[in-house]
This record gives sequence, structure tokens and C-alpha cells, in this order.
Amino acid sequence: MSQIEPVRAYAATEKSGSLQPFEFTPEALAPEHVEIAVDYCGICHSDLSVLDEEWGASRFPLVPGHEIVGRVVALGAQAKRLQVGDVVGVGWFASSCMACGECLDGDQHLCGQTQGTIMGRHGGFAQRVQCHWAWAVPLPADVSPAAAGPLFCGGITVFNPLVQFGIRPTDRVGVVGVGGLGHMALQFLAKWGCEVTAFSSSEAKADEARRLGAHRVVSSRDKGDLKALARSLDFILVTVNVDLDWSAYLAALKPHGRLHFVGAVLEPLNVRAFNLIGGQKSISGSPVGAPATMAKMLEFCARHRIAPWVEEFGMSEVNDALDHLRAGKARYRIVLKNDFS
Amino acid sequence: MSQIEPVRAYAATEKSGSLQPFEFTPEALAPEHVEIAVDYCGICHSDLSVLDEEWGASRFPLVPGHEIVGRVVALGAQAKRLQVGDVVGVGWFASSCMACGECLDGDQHLCGQTQGTIMGRHGGFAQRVQCHWAWAVPLPADVSPAAAGPLFCGGITVFNPLVQFGIRPTDRVGVVGVGGLGHMALQFLAKWGCEVTAFSSSEAKADEARRLGAHRVVSSRDKGDLKALARSLDFILVTVNVDLDWSAYLAALKPHGRLHFVGAVLEPLNVRAFNLIGGQKSISGSPVGAPATMAKMLEFCARHRIAPWVEEFGMSEVNDALDHLRAGKARYRIVLKNDFS
Repeated sequence: MSQIEPVRAYAATEKSGSLQPFEFTPEALAPEHVEIAVDYCGICHSDLSVLDEEWGASRFPLVPGHEIVGRVVALGAQAKRLQVGDVVGVGWFASSCMACGECLDGDQHLCGQTQGTIMGRHGGFAQRVQCHWAWAVPLPADVSPAAAGPLFCGGITVFNPLVQFGIRPTDRVGVVGVGGLGHMALQFLAKWGCEVTAFSSSEAKADEARRLGAHRVVSSRDKGDLKALARSLDFILVTVNVDLDWSAYLAALKPHGRLHFVGAVLEPLNVRAFNLIGGQKSISGSPVGAPATMAKMLEFCARHRIAPWVEEFGMSEVNDALDHLRAGKARYRIVLKNDFS
Repeated sequence: MSQIEPVRAYAATEKSGSLQPFEFTPEALAPEHVEIAVDYCGICHSDLSVLDEEWGASRFPLVPGHEIVGRVVALGAQAKRLQVGDVVGVGWFASSCMACGECLDGDQHLCGQTQGTIMGRHGGFAQRVQCHWAWAVPLPADVSPAAAGPLFCGGITVFNPLVQFGIRPTDRVGVVGVGGLGHMALQFLAKWGCEVTAFSSSEAKADEARRLGAHRVVSSRDKGDLKALARSLDFILVTVNVDLDWSAYLAALKPHGRLHFVGAVLEPLNVRAFNLIGGQKSISGSPVGAPATMAKMLEFCARHRIAPWVEEFGMSEVNDALDHLRAGKARYRIVLKNDFS
């Protein structure tokens, strides 16, 4: 493309502002980057966090959207592996340095020089986006593009720890929160072979949790229910971002157990060394996952027919969709379909 | 022994009381237990904690002492592996159930039915003690009985995590605290092949830390020094029981890094999920170690001529020795020698 075509998008011009039609001229495609025509883009809670400037560092005008599925339409001169026309997904990260110890070791998501898809760049509520070729991960034929978007941020966030922390099919696992992240975690873990316990504060979600793969559903706030689980679980995945009684969750773990956070609980974790020492337990956290782990996740989804449960809105209805998410009504993930005319 | 001989010992009759000569008749030897004539017994900070009833559950009269080295003098009918005359060590635990999932899996130290050597039993400040045969671990010929006692509680406490959490010789490791535990950790890690950083609040200990194997010594309280280590360490072993700026220590870890507690810090650990998520980091804790790990530790000590640095007191000087420990003057571990006439 000798002439760079402008991109139509939806952007907020100020903190927490509604999104408005917005047009910008993208940068010339970097040698290792690819350009993707957006077909679908999921909405993630972290789009709201960046829109609301909760983490600082937001830059306006802001085009949110980092659960992108689309087709490769242009390749930089040094882009590898992809061809024009490939159906790919892009998540929270648009690039990493590809040269540091972490990148060379397959931990590109832990690179110190990652660039967020919506952090200082324009995201997926748009006709087109650009990213490093390695971060555009091809969709297997059996994975539906219309529902796959949420896998690229929410999905990989809960899939990555299963790989990185060696969760075994013989393990008994708990998932705290049956929401955007949790509903994917339940599906993954059921097919992983684990015994799956869902923790939810909402009784209304118990049946859905079971349909998603939970073998049992326990109140996330009932001390008695938690106490009955003492010393029974190998791994507890926390997908919520509210403060719970973490020492009680630690007590529900077997020796060697791990309490793992992917939800950005802002309060200090009120636990003591004593809660960890006796049973040789761990607390940990992780962000999304590396491209190779994303590819494994997609293959696993194809094999087991796992897909996010999504509600579809047109991209032009983005403000309605954001309101729906803010109201806690999404069941369980929202995807915007490109309807630019 | 048809007639059970009484045991002479030193006991406190009340919380924080001084120790006085004390005589008791031991229980008949259980079928799987062995009786050991005590030659040496180390003093551990947790003897003080139990003496001072810091953890509740202390029973008086209390005979402290759980870093025991001695000779097997009697075997229960079902005792395995040991012979009368074997030189063995006994640490924090005197027995475990040997039948639960943890025991059968080699994690006897994580058994839910462990019995502490000084918890509801009389410990090693005595002529003789009893324990389950599995918890009496034979000393290799090259390990000096006079200095080995502290290996059985303090030593295994810092050795166990190296085995259990897969510390590799290529790792860069930090040890917080150059004291009873830390001075053994530095020796182990140097011979483990690691790059070793000692963190200490005492400049006076810097030279000794280097002699013990540290490649460098850093102030444990200087924020600037810690900041300069950002993203550089794989593993930090916390041997102190005071509250430090744990989020700053987490920042000193590389991605995948682990902050591991063996010191019973009583304050809540002031960390947030965010401190863990970005770099996929862990916080964990562990208690002592299983008999098989103790045997590995002893073999490693023999191979590399590793020994605790000890100050020897006669057992009759136990109160002076306890005062010396309470005053923080032990360099680095105290051993009582049996001097019952």
C-alpha cells in the first residue's frame, strides 16, 4: 500500500466518555507487523478499566478493544508465519521485543517491553489494527470466529495458568467467580480432566456453572461451606476482583496447593506466612499468556468444542454494549461485530 | 527393657520459666518407635516460641529441644531400617501417620497427624528421646555429630524448599537474614551452584555472609539497593520473622520468581495481586522437610563439607544458652552437649 488508508473506529475522547465515530491514519506498517481487518472484537473488563483510567497511563482519544478476530490484509517485509487472508486473533498484547530472555524462552507475555493493544495504540473497535506477527495467532478451522474473540484475553488469562503451573487431570480445582473469565475456566478445567468446584456469590448461576462443567457449586462467601472443603483442593483460580477471605481459601487447599489470582484484586491480600508454611502452599498470579500457549488453547478449544458464551452487538452499538457490561448483565462475554458500512 | 528407666532432663514448669532438672518416666516404646540416647541437642528459636507459649498449645512441664543427635538404644518391634548403635538425628517432628496420602507420597512433613518432638512430648534437653523410626535419620560418617543437630530443624527448613521448588544451579537466589537459618541457606545455595545474594540489616555480618558463600551482600532495608536489583532474582528465601517491604522484594524477582517464607512473619503480608500478576510470580511457605529430604541434605552436607556454625554449651548450662539466644548473640547456632553425670 503506497497510500495509507485511514481507519474508521470508535473512540472516547476523555476519561469514561462515551465512544464516538473516529477516524485516524495508522502508522506505516512496521517490518515485523501485520495489518488485520477486524471482523469481531470482544469487550473485556479491562477495556473499562483503561477507559476509566483506573490504571493510569490511558491515552485519549482511546479506541478500546483487545479481543480481536479478523483477517490478515497486509504483511510487513519481515513478518513470518502468516499469509494474507489468514484468520487470526489478537489479545491484550500487540507486541513484545522478541529478543530478551523471556521472549527467547517462550515467555513473550512476560517481556519487559510488551506493548498493549490499547495502551498508546488504537485497538479493535475499528476497521483495522496492527500488531507484531507473533501476536496474531491463527484460528483453527473448527473455532468459530464469531465467538473466539474473548479467548484472546479472558480465555488465555485462565488457560495460561493451567499450562504454566502444571495443573494435572487428577487435580481437584476450584474456580472463584462464574463470570467472563470463570465461565471459560470451568469449561477448560472440565475438559482438562479435573474435579471442578465453582465458587459463586450468585445462587442464580449455579445451574449454568454446572452446564459449563462444574461438578459442584459452593457459595464464595459462606464460611461454613468453605470450611467443609478444608484440605481438599489442589488449585484455586481466582477470577474475581473483589476482596474475599483468602486465608479461608488457603485452608481449603491440600498441602502443596496454590491460590492463583488472575483477577486484579486491588486490596492487599490479607494472608500471613503461617497460612502458607504448614501446608507448603503458594499464592501466585499471572497475566494472559504467550503466543504458543494461545495456540495450544485454540487447539484445545477445537478438540473439545469449547467456546465462550457470547452476546453479539453491532460495533455501532458499542455504547449499549458497554452499558450492558457495566451493569453486570453480560452472560458471559460480549462480542462486537464489525458493521462499518 | 522390661523395666522402664526414668529419663533425666531439663524442663520449664511454666510459660517462659527457667529450665530446671526434671525426671520423668517415658512411655513404653511404641512398636514403630525407637529410643535414642541424646549426645547433642541444638537450640532453635521455636524452642523459645513454645517455651513462651507464642503459638498456644504448649504443655508444661516442657522439655524443649528438637535438634537432636544421638545413638539408637532401643527399637520397637516394628521399627525398620535402624539398628541399635546407629547415629541418628531427629528434628521438629517425632512422628507422622505414615498412612495418609501425604505420607505415602513422600511428604511426611505435610501429614495432618504429625506429632512435634516438643509438642505434648518431651524433647531433646534430656538423656533420651523417642520417635518414629522414619523420623530418626542416620548421619553419614562424614557429618560431625557435634555440629549436626541444627541441620535437623533449621537446616532442613532452608534445604527443603530448594528441593521442593526446583531451585536450579543456574538460578540467582537471595537469602533474607543472615542468622541461624540464613547462615545454613547461604552455604547450601553456594554449593547448589547458584548466584547468592545475602540480605541483612547488619553491616557487621557482611564479611561472614561472604565467607558462608554469598557473592554479594545487600541491605535488607535499603529501598535503593533493592530497587537496583529489580527483575534480577529467581528465588528469594525469607528466613527472618520481621515485617519487611515484601512488594519491593517481589519487584526484585524476575518473571516466574518466587518469594518463599520459612520465617514465621506474624504480620499480614502486605502484598497485592498486582505485585504477582504482571511477572507471573509466587509467594509461598514451607515447614521443615520429609525424612527422605533430610537424608539428601545430609549427603549434600557430607559431600560439600557443609556444617552449621555452632557454639557449644553443656546441657547443664541450658539457661545461659537460652539467654545467649534471646540476646541475639548466637553465631550462628547453639548446641547443647549432654553432660548428665
